[in-house]
Amino acid sequence: MPAQRKSQLFERVALIGMGLIGSSLARVLRRDGLAGHIAASARTQATLDKAAELELCDSATLDAAEAAAGADLVMLCTPMGVYAETASTIASALKPGAVVSDVGSVKRQVIRDVGPLIPEGVHLVPGHPVAGTEHSGPEAGFAELFAGRWCILTPPPGTDEGAVERVAELWRRAGMKIEVMDADHHDQVLAITSHLPHLIAYTIVGTATDLEQHLKEEVIKFSASGFRDFTRIAASDPVMWRDIFLNNRDAVLEMLGRFNEDLTALQRAIRWGEGDKLQELFTRTREIRTGVIEADQA
Amino acid sequence: MPAQRKSQLFERVALIGMGLIGSSLARVLRRDGLAGHIAASARTQATLDKAAELELCDSATLDAAEAAAGADLVMLCTPMGVYAETASTIASALKPGAVVSDVGSVKRQVIRDVGPLIPEGVHLVPGHPVAGTEHSGPEAGFAELFAGRWCILTPPPGTDEGAVERVAELWRRAGMKIEVMDADHHDQVLAITSHLPHLIAYTIVGTATDLEQHLKEEVIKFSASGFRDFTRIAASDPVMWRDIFLNNRDAVLEMLGRFNEDLTALQRAIRWGEGDKLQELFTRTREIRTGVIEADQA
Repeated sequence: MPAQRKSQLFERVALIGMGLIGSSLARVLRRDGLAGHIAASARTQATLDKAAELELCDSATLDAAEAAAGADLVMLCTPMGVYAETASTIASALKPGAVVSDVGSVKRQVIRDVGPLIPEGVHLVPGHPVAGTEHSGPEAGFAELFAGRWCILTPPPGTDEGAVERVAELWRRAGMKIEVMDADHHDQVLAITSHLPHLIAYTIVGTATDLEQHLKEEVIKFSASGFRDFTRIAASDPVMWRDIFLNNRDAVLEMLGRFNEDLTALQRAIRWGEGDKLQELFTRTREIRTGVIEADQA
Repeated sequence: MPAQRKSQLFERVALIGMGLIGSSLARVLRRDGLAGHIAASARTQATLDKAAELELCDSATLDAAEAAAGADLVMLCTPMGVYAETASTIASALKPGAVVSDVGSVKRQVIRDVGPLIPEGVHLVPGHPVAGTEHSGPEAGFAELFAGRWCILTPPPGTDEGAVERVAELWRRAGMKIEVMDADHHDQVLAITSHLPHLIAYTIVGTATDLEQHLKEEVIKFSASGFRDFTRIAASDPVMWRDIFLNNRDAVLEMLGRFNEDLTALQRAIRWGEGDKLQELFTRTREIRTGVIEADQA
């Protein structure tokens, strides 16, 4: 076994999934020499070939169990819909003391679907690096994706603290700030900050695609007036987002209910020409932007 | 009278309103020497003082009629809610052959409210430079705001073609591409590309401000996950947007109705776990983004 370098955090990291997040993490591992060996697994040979071509891994396999065998850290970077299947596949290959983590946008579901499949002596540390772009695939990744952003970890009560710290340190090396919270709380917060905004963006872009032809042609031409920002959000990965909505259903429906009530009130104010109500809300929302800018998230 | 310079388009331009758009246009006029004299008018002395300090005008007055007197071009750059009042004020001061134009986001209302007040021999050329930021006031303006964007002109049937061309040339000098269309068509297109996106952004940011305290604190912290883009849109000028919704009511309510139908369908798909429907829509919306990028509007 080669002597572990000072910067090295793990002897062997298995990345299950080499999309935007998996491949960006691989670039961080490479850049900083954080892993002695990067074992990549993906669903298609094309993705593995691309990852190898980009020199993002030391070994590549279609078999997740082969990648996970002997790994100190197994990071699930696939759409959440295949987590349970993947966990079943790799369970018997996991070595004692290994850490299994993930990068998914819903956390209660990881504990529910993956938790029971993880063998005794292996540590499950669900995580969510809150970073991304509307682009997908191994060629879309970049090491700086995570810099300055938050990574939320949601270890279930009783999780080994050393395991949590190892995952936290990995994301710190990627430039992230760490927050630890309860999985349910995470799912509520992300429902309003991420899932509902995406749902709405998908909806309005969908509404625009269904317009009469003479309007539809103009929509793209004049998209700079607001619509453009929504098209960027609504260009995010379809399978990933399908799985997010299916797996954070209750929190998303709750926030959507509140949104609908508020939108109906605005609709009524427009219909009846209640300018004061509109102006009051529009003034209030401006303050939130100030908060975002002050929190350095703009 | 000084000899007109080659680049000069107008001897005297009156800018009624010196916010983001008015002050940006003033900067263009200055930069390219397009006006012999820039007469600025605003509702408050503070705005006029700021405009003078930034050297954006040759004369400044609280009296719109004084600014408009003798002007070749009078450009209305106030919130639309005061257009009718302003038109009444300036009507008798307008010189024969003058052009009255505007920069508002709704065009049928200009023809309805301002048209009847304009004296015989003065030309009304409603316009909409489709450009902006979430910032307001004379200090927020910049000459490059319009570069590469569309300016839509909606002259009523029978409008003097020379007058339309003079306004078109002004915006071309500002770097804009010109499109001429019917006012009703403009208002429908902007309802979906601009007004509805803003309404939705205002709504979701409002929904977030009403959250329970333990969630509200996290919203800003984790805003990078989608919400942030909405806070920028929802930081736009409250009075300007109040007037847009009040004056484009029918088109906005029509598009909002379609959006609500589509959102309800998605809500049902989430509730019943219909992943195929979600993925199908999310794939379709991705294509629109490609269109936006190809149209060079991204």
